[in-house]
Amino acid sequence: MKISLILAHPKTDSFNAAIAETARGVLVKNGHTVFVHDLYREHFDPVHPADEEKSDEKDLPPYIQDYIAEMRNVDGLIYVHPNWWGGPPAILRGWIDRVFRQNSVYNFTAEGPVCHIGKKIVQIFSTSNTPRDVERNFYGDPIEVFWKTVVFGLLGSESFERRNFEQIILSTPEERKAWLAEVAQTVERRFPS
Amino acid sequence: MKISLILAHPKTDSFNAAIAETARGVLVKNGHTVFVHDLYREHFDPVHPADEEKSDEKDLPPYIQDYIAEMRNVDGLIYVHPNWWGGPPAILRGWIDRVFRQNSVYNFTAEGPVCHIGKKIVQIFSTSNTPRDVERNFYGDPIEVFWKTVVFGLLGSESFERRNFEQIILSTPEERKAWLAEVAQTVERRFPS
Repeated sequence: MKISLILAHPKTDSFNAAIAETARGVLVKNGHTVFVHDLYREHFDPVHPADEEKSDEKDLPPYIQDYIAEMRNVDGLIYVHPNWWGGPPAILRGWIDRVFRQNSVYNFTAEGPVCHIGKKIVQIFSTSNTPRDVERNFYGDPIEVFWKTVVFGLLGSESFERRNFEQIILSTPEERKAWLAEVAQTVERRFPS
Repeated sequence: MKISLILAHPKTDSFNAAIAETARGVLVKNGHTVFVHDLYREHFDPVHPADEEKSDEKDLPPYIQDYIAEMRNVDGLIYVHPNWWGGPPAILRGWIDRVFRQNSVYNFTAEGPVCHIGKKIVQIFSTSNTPRDVERNFYGDPIEVFWKTVVFGLLGSESFERRNFEQIILSTPEERKAWLAEVAQTVERRFPS
């Protein structure tokens, strides 16, 4: 399979970076082609410019064209990010704004939204410091709503799973080690060789 | 009163820009001091850098220090933005990430979050193309959750209101004129002279 692995965390020594590296290792071991994107290291610009909405795809910046081509090409999408104010960091929000663009990636029709890039196997790994019951019952699990209902509710997916690890700030080295083992098992199960 | 008016839309001729200009006019007429920020025209950088989290406030970029000082100073906050994937554009998401920073603007304590900037009169004007019943019943009104529950649920507010105008894409000039009149009435009511 071909898989895009997209990381959005400012720190290279973060637990998010460790999740991405663990996932990448399993994907490579299983013989998949992996496109790894560390959005901070790429200096991805998340600000959708005014003139981009109506542009022909061939007039977009080359790195946006490349991302759209990659989205058409891959079978799976893995996103890794922390919970900042109930959502991914702005660098990943803006990646969605710019890459998942109308006309290239989807369109609205009288019968509802139509996706042009095919249905993907989607895996989200997110991290947070909020206790799980508070995140679900008080906040309504906004990261789940964002990915499952808003983004892939519109685009569709072959299958969708999300695992949130919490509370990072209180976690022990042993817990984080067990969580990385769970990441490896999840990627092994969802993207087998 | 002193009020921050924050606009996040790429186009200067957008309905969002017209909302902000209408609100500004009423605030000035009523004798308030208005700090107007068009985040696109300011070229605000929404990418929270790795080294900013632990920085002393005096080591932050001057424009972030200025925003934090303004947040301490104002009585009211007005945000104007469209609905992009169930939230504000990344430029405003990242403004929240960087300006509403821990230690400067809030802290977590054993008794829960504590806000250091005082409680504000908060007004959100948002726009979308999704029908209201779909936004509420299918998506769970994620913009309301973001502002009311996540951001000002944590920071607190003196009072909070939000008005969403939809569906922009199908609206007539007469509807948009009536909506701007409603914006003026709302700002008049919430920020009287």
